[in-house]
Amino acid sequence: MTANQTGISTQAVLSMRSGGYYSERTYGAKQAIDKMLPVVQDALTPDPAASGILRVADFGAADGGTSRELWFKAFQALREGGDGREIAITYTDLPSNDFSTLFRTMQGLQGDEALAYQKQLDGVFVYGCGTGFHTQLFPSESLDFGFSATAMHYLSVKPCEISTHVHATGAEGAEADAFAEQARADWERILLARAAELKPGGRMVCLNFGIDEKGRYLGNTGGQHMFNMFDRFWKELRDEGKITPTEYERATFVQYYRTLEEFTAPLKDPSSPVAKAGLRLVDAFSTYTRCPYETRFSESGGSMTNAEFAKSLIPTMRSWSETVFLTALDGRPPAEAQALVDEFYQSYEDHVAVEPAGHAMDYIHIVVVMEKT
Amino acid sequence: MTANQTGISTQAVLSMRSGGYYSERTYGAKQAIDKMLPVVQDALTPDPAASGILRVADFGAADGGTSRELWFKAFQALREGGDGREIAITYTDLPSNDFSTLFRTMQGLQGDEALAYQKQLDGVFVYGCGTGFHTQLFPSESLDFGFSATAMHYLSVKPCEISTHVHATGAEGAEADAFAEQARADWERILLARAAELKPGGRMVCLNFGIDEKGRYLGNTGGQHMFNMFDRFWKELRDEGKITPTEYERATFVQYYRTLEEFTAPLKDPSSPVAKAGLRLVDAFSTYTRCPYETRFSESGGSMTNAEFAKSLIPTMRSWSETVFLTALDGRPPAEAQALVDEFYQSYEDHVAVEPAGHAMDYIHIVVVMEKT
Ligand SMILES: C[S@@+](CC[C@H](N)C(=O)[O-])C[C@H]1O[C@@H](n2cnc3c(N)ncnc32)[C@H](O)[C@@H]1O
Ligand SMILES: C[S@@+](CC[C@H](N)C(=O)[O-])C[C@H]1O[C@@H](n2cnc3c(N)ncnc32)[C@H](O)[C@@H]1O
Repeated sequence: MTANQTGISTQAVLSMRSGGYYSERTYGAKQAIDKMLPVVQDALTPDPAASGILRVADFGAADGGTSRELWFKAFQALREGGDGREIAITYTDLPSNDFSTLFRTMQGLQGDEALAYQKQLDGVFVYGCGTGFHTQLFPSESLDFGFSATAMHYLSVKPCEISTHVHATGAEGAEADAFAEQARADWERILLARAAELKPGGRMVCLNFGIDEKGRYLGNTGGQHMFNMFDRFWKELRDEGKITPTEYERATFVQYYRTLEEFTAPLKDPSSPVAKAGLRLVDAFSTYTRCPYETRFSESGGSMTNAEFAKSLIPTMRSWSETVFLTALDGRPPAEAQALVDEFYQSYEDHVAVEPAGHAMDYIHIVVVMEKT
Repeated sequence: MTANQTGISTQAVLSMRSGGYYSERTYGAKQAIDKMLPVVQDALTPDPAASGILRVADFGAADGGTSRELWFKAFQALREGGDGREIAITYTDLPSNDFSTLFRTMQGLQGDEALAYQKQLDGVFVYGCGTGFHTQLFPSESLDFGFSATAMHYLSVKPCEISTHVHATGAEGAEADAFAEQARADWERILLARAAELKPGGRMVCLNFGIDEKGRYLGNTGGQHMFNMFDRFWKELRDEGKITPTEYERATFVQYYRTLEEFTAPLKDPSSPVAKAGLRLVDAFSTYTRCPYETRFSESGGSMTNAEFAKSLIPTMRSWSETVFLTALDGRPPAEAQALVDEFYQSYEDHVAVEPAGHAMDYIHIVVVMEKT
């Protein structure tokens, strides 16, 4: 156990806007999670004869809004299948996470009460854990099931600034290598921690941003390229002298999109520390989730204007990317930094409003299912 | 289990100012907790032969600052006694609690690193639970040890406004009875929930504000009477027409100070639901903790002025009482309400500065130690 390597140096960059803002803007994330129900139910088969406590965890859960329906349905299926085990679910995230919204939502004090499983179902107990997931978060062999959605592309530290782009997907040479190596080491730490926590026979389902077999990834699925757009408009601010070259560079997402091969390598190599710790691969595949904003637009039959589409699409990107650009402007008066970032997203929005074709934030996820032997 | 009675209707009234503010202002609370170390260690004797996970909880822990040293020492003693069991500690409070500060503190990212037991000791895992403590918060018979300090005097609902005073200690007739009955029912729910959670042989130590055998209680230990002072200056605002009679009445602390007899009755009566649920009384006694601000003042040998004393004493009272008065002014513009509340505490401060003798916030706690049979 390495309890002192909490891996939260990226905290400032990652912190999301709070008060349920995240969930409202992320129907796509929720859709991707909802598709996992069969995989989750495969791991959580009702067992009327089972005794003891069922302990599950949702790693990097933010305010818990996007996965609430999944957990509700999974728990309900257990009860309907005659499985009355008490359930302890722990949501993990960084310490800065909005745990208050999470707790309120599960109790039915905020949001849709029908999904408030703590209120609707008997014997479900909800907890939060504010330690980063690169270390062991639960006592050894105490967890029956783990789940994580769209969280483990965040790296524990920024290995370097990317000098020519904002995102690892556009990095080159030694900078690209440094990100790949950090991602490899982080993934190994994540897997070793989960291997320690899971009970023998326990499963973990990870749904992570990644690069699929066609080379597609978030915001780059054949049409326009979202990260190139980010880079283009950020560079524009630099070239116009509105931000400094250093500020341009500092906008480096602390993220890496692993390929299916990178995700599964430590689980498939019998000599790896992860395999030796007893974690084995059950399944791995990629999934595509179409951008809900682009869908609504293209199905609107012309009733939605280009400008309306742009105004709906950009906020969802902004919800998870804004802090990267704001942090890059650290040292400026907050109002000034905010104005620059507003201008940045406005440029992107204006661009989409003029020519919306191909703009979207389609999701590409790599699903990895593993089991502790 | 009654998972839908979360008892948080008093949430707005109770929420503390966040960001570590609470702990800094509450050295007295910390001293009272620190005195509990022998009682806690009595329940958590190191056992080098013990296996499994040690699961403990701190109920109503706020940001965890005041009890951190206690837990650090208790865990350290276990390790030093050769007890290597992994420890899972869950801090509970209302959903609005500042869990972020709590998580940061335990990891050593904020405050004194030497006491950051998650960092300093191996195998300690920290969680938060944002459900009120009037219901079962842990799976049945899963908890080895529970602790709670200065939290259970808060009632789950306000039974009525107190028309002639701000606090139950000054209530009369039917209003006093309503508070006593609410406190009785709440205490029974608290004990039944703990009885369900504790493992057989597991202990719970409660350190609660209460009324001791001499009739003393918080801020009323022989000198001036703090709640009468609150009432006096709040009435003054009413009598000067600055607040309405309704606003005067609405400032009613949702608190009740139980006597030792009220605390122990359900544990001593073999026919009570609590006794039937298997909870038995181990020990109960009162403790007095002298006000640290008054101590510093009286030991300053005149180097601290009356005004300085007043300026140090009032903020500690304000840290836990302010929301009661602000909430009473709901409906006014926030700045206006804040100005009235500022004036209220200023009157108290001015009063103390003129004649400091007898002003203090001495603590009177009733300690109840119980065990699940
Ligand atoms: C994009 S959100 C995903 C939220 C939710 N799981 C979903 O799929 O909608 C990523 C979350 O991962 C969290 N996160 C990033 N790094 C983390 C770490 N090292 N440990 C725990 N959580 C982390 C972020 O704080 C954020 O809440
Ligand atoms: C005076 S503080 C005590 C904090 C800490 N235990 C100490 O002794 O310094 C009381 C705490 O109890 C919490 N509290 C009040 N009612 C509660 C309830 N029904 N369930 C859980 N916590 C509650 C408050 O939110 C607050 O954090």
